[in-house]
Amino acid sequence: MSGNLKDRMKKGDVLLGAWCMIPGALTAEILASSGFDWVLVDMQHGCMDYETALEMIRAIDLGGATPIVRVPWNEPGIIGRMLDAGAMGIVAPMIQTPDDAARLVEACLYPPVGRRSLGPIRVGVRDGAGYFAGANDRVMVIPMIETVEALESVEEIAAVPGIDALLVGPFDLSIALGLPPGDNDGKPAFDAAVARINRAAKDAGCATAVLSTGALAPVRAGQGFQLISTLTDAPAFTRTAHMELEKARAGLTKEKTDA
Amino acid sequence: MSGNLKDRMKKGDVLLGAWCMIPGALTAEILASSGFDWVLVDMQHGCMDYETALEMIRAIDLGGATPIVRVPWNEPGIIGRMLDAGAMGIVAPMIQTPDDAARLVEACLYPPVGRRSLGPIRVGVRDGAGYFAGANDRVMVIPMIETVEALESVEEIAAVPGIDALLVGPFDLSIALGLPPGDNDGKPAFDAAVARINRAAKDAGCATAVLSTGALAPVRAGQGFQLISTLTDAPAFTRTAHMELEKARAGLTKEKTDA
Amino acid sequence: MSGNLKDRMKKGDVLLGAWCMIPGALTAEILASSGFDWVLVDMQHGCMDYETALEMIRAIDLGGATPIVRVPWNEPGIIGRMLDAGAMGIVAPMIQTPDDAARLVEACLYPPVGRRSLGPIRVGVRDGAGYFAGANDRVMVIPMIETVEALESVEEIAAVPGIDALLVGPFDLSIALGLPPGDNDGKPAFDAAVARINRAAKDAGCATAVLSTGALAPVRAGQGFQLISTLTDAPAFTRTAHMELEKARAGLTKEKTDA
Amino acid sequence: MSGNLKDRMKKGDVLLGAWCMIPGALTAEILASSGFDWVLVDMQHGCMDYETALEMIRAIDLGGATPIVRVPWNEPGIIGRMLDAGAMGIVAPMIQTPDDAARLVEACLYPPVGRRSLGPIRVGVRDGAGYFAGANDRVMVIPMIETVEALESVEEIAAVPGIDALLVGPFDLSIALGLPPGDNDGKPAFDAAVARINRAAKDAGCATAVLSTGALAPVRAGQGFQLISTLTDAPAFTRTAHMELEKARAGLTKEKTDA
Amino acid sequence: MSGNLKDRMKKGDVLLGAWCMIPGALTAEILASSGFDWVLVDMQHGCMDYETALEMIRAIDLGGATPIVRVPWNEPGIIGRMLDAGAMGIVAPMIQTPDDAARLVEACLYPPVGRRSLGPIRVGVRDGAGYFAGANDRVMVIPMIETVEALESVEEIAAVPGIDALLVGPFDLSIALGLPPGDNDGKPAFDAAVARINRAAKDAGCATAVLSTGALAPVRAGQGFQLISTLTDAPAFTRTAHMELEKARAGLTKEKTDA
Amino acid sequence: MSGNLKDRMKKGDVLLGAWCMIPGALTAEILASSGFDWVLVDMQHGCMDYETALEMIRAIDLGGATPIVRVPWNEPGIIGRMLDAGAMGIVAPMIQTPDDAARLVEACLYPPVGRRSLGPIRVGVRDGAGYFAGANDRVMVIPMIETVEALESVEEIAAVPGIDALLVGPFDLSIALGLPPGDNDGKPAFDAAVARINRAAKDAGCATAVLSTGALAPVRAGQGFQLISTLTDAPAFTRTAHMELEKARAGLTKEKTDA
Repeated sequence: MSGNLKDRMKKGDVLLGAWCMIPGALTAEILASSGFDWVLVDMQHGCMDYETALEMIRAIDLGGATPIVRVPWNEPGIIGRMLDAGAMGIVAPMIQTPDDAARLVEACLYPPVGRRSLGPIRVGVRDGAGYFAGANDRVMVIPMIETVEALESVEEIAAVPGIDALLVGPFDLSIALGLPPGDNDGKPAFDAAVARINRAAKDAGCATAVLSTGALAPVRAGQGFQLISTLTDAPAFTRTAHMELEKARAGLTKEKTDA
Repeated sequence: MSGNLKDRMKKGDVLLGAWCMIPGALTAEILASSGFDWVLVDMQHGCMDYETALEMIRAIDLGGATPIVRVPWNEPGIIGRMLDAGAMGIVAPMIQTPDDAARLVEACLYPPVGRRSLGPIRVGVRDGAGYFAGANDRVMVIPMIETVEALESVEEIAAVPGIDALLVGPFDLSIALGLPPGDNDGKPAFDAAVARINRAAKDAGCATAVLSTGALAPVRAGQGFQLISTLTDAPAFTRTAHMELEKARAGLTKEKTDA
Repeated sequence: MSGNLKDRMKKGDVLLGAWCMIPGALTAEILASSGFDWVLVDMQHGCMDYETALEMIRAIDLGGATPIVRVPWNEPGIIGRMLDAGAMGIVAPMIQTPDDAARLVEACLYPPVGRRSLGPIRVGVRDGAGYFAGANDRVMVIPMIETVEALESVEEIAAVPGIDALLVGPFDLSIALGLPPGDNDGKPAFDAAVARINRAAKDAGCATAVLSTGALAPVRAGQGFQLISTLTDAPAFTRTAHMELEKARAGLTKEKTDA
Repeated sequence: MSGNLKDRMKKGDVLLGAWCMIPGALTAEILASSGFDWVLVDMQHGCMDYETALEMIRAIDLGGATPIVRVPWNEPGIIGRMLDAGAMGIVAPMIQTPDDAARLVEACLYPPVGRRSLGPIRVGVRDGAGYFAGANDRVMVIPMIETVEALESVEEIAAVPGIDALLVGPFDLSIALGLPPGDNDGKPAFDAAVARINRAAKDAGCATAVLSTGALAPVRAGQGFQLISTLTDAPAFTRTAHMELEKARAGLTKEKTDA
Repeated sequence: MSGNLKDRMKKGDVLLGAWCMIPGALTAEILASSGFDWVLVDMQHGCMDYETALEMIRAIDLGGATPIVRVPWNEPGIIGRMLDAGAMGIVAPMIQTPDDAARLVEACLYPPVGRRSLGPIRVGVRDGAGYFAGANDRVMVIPMIETVEALESVEEIAAVPGIDALLVGPFDLSIALGLPPGDNDGKPAFDAAVARINRAAKDAGCATAVLSTGALAPVRAGQGFQLISTLTDAPAFTRTAHMELEKARAGLTKEKTDA
Repeated sequence: MSGNLKDRMKKGDVLLGAWCMIPGALTAEILASSGFDWVLVDMQHGCMDYETALEMIRAIDLGGATPIVRVPWNEPGIIGRMLDAGAMGIVAPMIQTPDDAARLVEACLYPPVGRRSLGPIRVGVRDGAGYFAGANDRVMVIPMIETVEALESVEEIAAVPGIDALLVGPFDLSIALGLPPGDNDGKPAFDAAVARINRAAKDAGCATAVLSTGALAPVRAGQGFQLISTLTDAPAFTRTAHMELEKARAGLTKEKTDA
């Protein structure tokens, strides 16, 4: 199933995902088994080391979703490791220039297109001997657009050969624009940035991706985003804990009041 | 703060808790920081080894809740290890007879009351030199009542010196009663069992505890339960994932239909 | 796929397996992906803790084989944990009497047949809500016959309701019989023991299982064994290392001699 | 080197050891490299899981000391696992009767003397094919004497065939005797217990072992103890931290006062 | 408590710390509970991965000290991860130029001052929603001065906006100066370097920090250092082991001699 | 024993090694105990984190082979960490220019030759106080030659002071040359590249190393390679699994056919 996500994206499908910050395979397996099209292991702001990330990729494979990894930095060592582990997409933070994007592509793809080194130990167990031949066609290269510099050259970044999608983190983008962190829909600077990124991607023939929520997903789809993260595990879990506790307290208070 | 839970229980307070099946300190820290009075690390049905359980206890301490541990079996080795790790209460499954309960007390308490061995390495770092002297007064001993045998001698079990509370897992209790797993409120056998356990505990001067949800917590409090788990992490997280995905899908469908 | 192994065994199929002593999911995933019908995680003589065993079960699930676990001892705590982790069969060492076997069955099966406690957290993620209803029919209960005591009551052990197969470890069996550890085929005591175990199992309607090698598998199948482990990871890996090194050394020596 | 400790003990040597509560191989490697004859991994009151304990045993082997393990309980599963991991001695807590001691011996030794199961996966890598033949002669079986019951039958316990040494934990022994935890030398009950244990051991031809400190080691040797732990890692580290901090504070205060 | 260290440093307080090379939370918790103002997790020369470092930060938080991290290299990926984990200060090795220092500041602080990306998952659990607003004021940015190049531009490095303290490792500094590794007090080159660094820091309004010992701490304070590490765990533990063993051996020898 | 490998290489010995991709100390210990001169822990394409790599180095030390590490990238942070962990050689991928090679040397060696920072915590436990003085003479610096750029300046790379050997990965080299991944002996471009690398190394007074197999090792030795990896763990294990399974299946089929 892993190989299909890029094709579905190319066909224009909206693909719903979940974002893992919590280290460990159980939460990743729960998300992958829940029906999300893709699950991302976040090694930038999430709390997992490489070995845990690899276990999470196995759990995502097992649950039937496509594993994607956000690496902590645009650095070829960690990118190669996560691809060898089975990631079918790489999200890289803080891509600021077309040159950054080109180096990201180089790290993600095998020669002659890129410079990825051969050694797909674990992913070769999963996908067999055919992995090498198909990898460049199946791996998704996804730079983040989250700074003013990146925004100003977003058209050139999107046009770098090998780039498959541009990812927007509304919080970092907002901060870069001088806005408070959050989804600043309605604020002109935010809306303009979102529109510009989507247009740049469309013109370059690539897709867009965004960190979001279930409620906001339809809005984001309407703006052109195709890879839409609808849940981030740690904050979602925190909200659930608060809600459940609140429910209990409210009920107990009412009971006392009624008594 | 850790030392107060037993005192508050003795005073009759209702104490809301959360139940950890997911291995790892982050989810435990989130729960403990959310305001629950106690957080339980479940080594019976949860997925953590001892070292992970210890990290979770640290995270619970840090978040300001009282750590409790359910051990996989009424076995002195693991009970001693979890107390040394800092658990302030031990829940033991499958206690069937007063004799089982007496052996549980023995494993949880220092001589001359019990036979717990001295070596509070980690909890001594947390609580200092005074730990040994106060431990027997602060540790809570909590057998589970979940079989027909246990139910039939629940009054004797509750009366075993050193028992602090009886814990009910509605699912296993239901299965034992020949009912489908779940909260079978309204079914006479279930209601009678719950009532009998609460009455037995009250008569013996000990408390009752129950695995529950936020919505059901007030009902359980009304039945006499004082330690009420209002959230179990893995199923709560699963529900949240399904809900958020459903929200996204519903919105996307509506958008398509409207268009 | 996991659910089918017991049915295939009941139908009389010979099912080839691999035996994991090396801790870690990669070797387990390699084995499961190689085409073995089942892969066993050995927590008695293997080197993995529970959390690693759980990762190995995920890797075995992912590779398409059925995960079985040998527990270190016939103890309900660890048996329940491994079943909750997704093991579809439990091998228990040192079963000596029908009573031991009955306690093993009790620990492996849900009420009313057994006393397994409900809480299939991880296996519920894999198999969904239907797990509980089907578990008793799908889990395989497999005592080891490896002592003189066990051999002397093997007919009664095989007849204990709920026993699915008897497992023979030729090394421990040989030691028990006063023979050197190994496959002592041809030695009357060994052959008689093997024959008696297979006959006892057949009479009781259960199967037999054996630790073996690829070369010996057909012989064992001819003796009536159905679950045949054809490779144990650590010794197989050791042999491969020695062979490869020997090949290099021989070639280098020859080259020097030829020169 | 590992095989020699038991022989040296039989010859009457005093053998100095260190006691590991801190999980992880680095502190164990430091201790083993410091010149201790043996280093013990404490799985009863220490904070390590099995996999960590195995890493510690490798580090102790590497440092040139003999690895011994205290198991959390007299339970054959964990005893077998630690011996397979390379422990050359097993210390078992809470041995109360000759029967307990006999079961401990059974778990530690291969047939025909005991019932240890064959599968020395890791220790076989270290010691090679000869391990099985020599194991019963090299493994040390060491029950703890720490309760009144044990003390009252210490002569019978010492006489159980296969027992190599009796270990005294002064803290638990003191508590059992109604004394405050500690080295209660000079208190008649304590001195009498120590003397009785040493005499019982001597009469039975076995040795004695004790948890102690560098300063007290000569006294303990004088009482007949041969295996003397002179340092326990966690408390020793705590004292060092306090001393170093105190030194700094005192110097800073003096400097201020002088100024 | 974590937020106060920088303020106390700004007020001129001498703040005593401890330095962790040993991986694992127990030793870190012991140090933090011993009364040190800050405890540093050393990911350059220490032996811990990110996940272990995170557990150590939790243990330091719990013990009441302020967690600081030395990263292995001035690389934004790992710096961001450690800040998200809860580090309140970042020590970066091998800062050679003001430009290096400026990039370090950029990685440590949020926009508009720096370029740190937003995602304080774990530290947000600890510090709540206010973390983002206060982070730039509370995080300490601490370059190491340990090469001739750095020394030659130390005044410019100290003056880079956002630098809070300069850290001196006497061993590496000595090697850079052509001296043997160690505290080379009295050697003119060493003393001059120390004086120059302290003066440069003072002139720029920032503090100085140093790796030291309890005994030397008052001297270092007299030289102007404010953050003084008085204990490094691994060498301190090694010394304690040697001393305790020596004490035992000396006593045993004396006893023999006396006899 | 660890220190001798470089000397033996300088003397012209052919040194047989094994290559670890599988994370975990057991397989590494098996390889080191099998008689290989060196065992490499591959952090580029292998599946281990730093802490696991450190455990593997201990196991390799214990088995009597020399530990070498391939780092994921030519980055001083990870290089220093692995040397501190005890690696006696560093293999760095994707060295393309003499400048890359010079930076690699700088990261591997202490001043005044290089810029490695002092802090040999774990390796100091193994090798004692003399480690620092001898390290530059014992550590091997081994760039990989695997791109066209590297090949074109291989003579200059080999001549960079401090370079000890050039390593060839036939798979990546083949891809760089436009050949299918594999040992392309007989293909002119491949043979020419191999010859050029060996000649360049010889002229510069350094050695060559290669990833290979037992069967091919004599050929590689004949071409001038001295460090020859004769086994890579994961693919070797995979082949063994397939062979053993095939053997069983073939035997079973034959038996059926014969019957």
